Amino acid sequence: MSKEVKVLGAWPSPFVMRPRIALHLKSVDHEFVEETMHPKSELLLKSNPVHKKIPVLLHNDKPVCESLIIVEYIDEAFPSGPSILPSDAYDRAVHRFWAAYIDDKWFPSLQGTAKAQTEEAKAAALEETSQGLSLIEDAFVKCSQGKAFFGGDSIGYLDIAFGSYLGWLRVTEKTNNIELLSKEKTPNLLAWADKFCAHDSVKDYMPETAKLAEFAKMIFARFKAAAAST
Amino acid sequence: MSKEVKVLGAWPSPFVMRPRIALHLKSVDHEFVEETMHPKSELLLKSNPVHKKIPVLLHNDKPVCESLIIVEYIDEAFPSGPSILPSDAYDRAVHRFWAAYIDDKWFPSLQGTAKAQTEEAKAAALEETSQGLSLIEDAFVKCSQGKAFFGGDSIGYLDIAFGSYLGWLRVTEKTNNIELLSKEKTPNLLAWADKFCAHDSVKDYMPETAKLAEFAKMIFARFKAAAAST
Repeated sequence: MSKEVKVLGAWPSPFVMRPRIALHLKSVDHEFVEETMHPKSELLLKSNPVHKKIPVLLHNDKPVCESLIIVEYIDEAFPSGPSILPSDAYDRAVHRFWAAYIDDKWFPSLQGTAKAQTEEAKAAALEETSQGLSLIEDAFVKCSQGKAFFGGDSIGYLDIAFGSYLGWLRVTEKTNNIELLSKEKTPNLLAWADKFCAHDSVKDYMPETAKLAEFAKMIFARFKAAAAST
Repeated sequence: MSKEVKVLGAWPSPFVMRPRIALHLKSVDHEFVEETMHPKSELLLKSNPVHKKIPVLLHNDKPVCESLIIVEYIDEAFPSGPSILPSDAYDRAVHRFWAAYIDDKWFPSLQGTAKAQTEEAKAAALEETSQGLSLIEDAFVKCSQGKAFFGGDSIGYLDIAFGSYLGWLRVTEKTNNIELLSKEKTPNLLAWADKFCAHDSVKDYMPETAKLAEFAKMIFARFKAAAAST
């Protein structure tokens, strides 16, 4: 018998980690359906015809797309587990604001470090990434109120939104031989990152940095080839 | 005495309409603080230091930024009024999906019609805009279930998300002397648009097409100048 909840995805994707962590937090078992992407599966094309992107959550065969929308859906569809969004309306707005900032502004700057065609462009992208981390550090201090996570005592929406990029952040640090999270500039995020990665709901889905770095070499080479052909 | 709820914005912005419509739906009175943008006000810089963009909602002086996040906040902070998001979790995910599609994919294609530097590029952007409208037409049929609005019998989240662009859509039609919403291709959206614009919670905030077209001439000229200088 097929499982009620499936996640269609691929292991290196930060976006695919998000629903998997959320489901684990809610103690909802799921089947992971590996999407190979080349070519895209019929299930993916049928489930997400608009974007044709992973992840897709299938809940009793009904598809939900876009990773942060899926996380909110999981929070609402399985209300018996711990809350993922904060309970206060203003706090929810603040978490949504920072999650959108991280996806729309910060992550493109991290990607920019790999897509840069010159040393100058790479240095600018690394600086932008670093400045973004300072903003996220400030957001952490305000949201966590001295507790372990953005969500307080337990992992919440913003932890998942930012934490899902930690693998790629570490690959960027390794590739460029620099510290982006540091004791000097982002002491709170540095401590948080270790707790997040070691968390029961996260550790099985967080890729090993060495394995991800190998995968990244292939992706970064593709970025370079694409840029060279334009 | 200052009002409990303020919206910092400017009349031509589709994003600024969103919180104003949502507040009207909730029967929450608000003070509109006109942001002139050149230079940006101290209130804007202080309230939205990350993006420095309108709209900002100030609820008892606490700022909420990003228009769709503000609409969700209004829905949650004033629960006594009619619901803006659908009550069912799956329907909420579907509305959020289409609202994100409209902001991230469809609106950039509409903007592309004004930013295009060649007739060929303009034709391509108009075609992309039109194809997007066909997808949104299909979404309307599924969401509305034969009723007047995306939200059913009353205006909801997706109505606000898409409807806020109607002024700019009409300006684009006028500027290019074409029909983007039509009886042949998007009969449901065409009927919906009239009902949306005439709605009590919308009509005071929807700019007149002629006035917006005048404003658009200035903005479009700025797009062209910016493109020419790159």
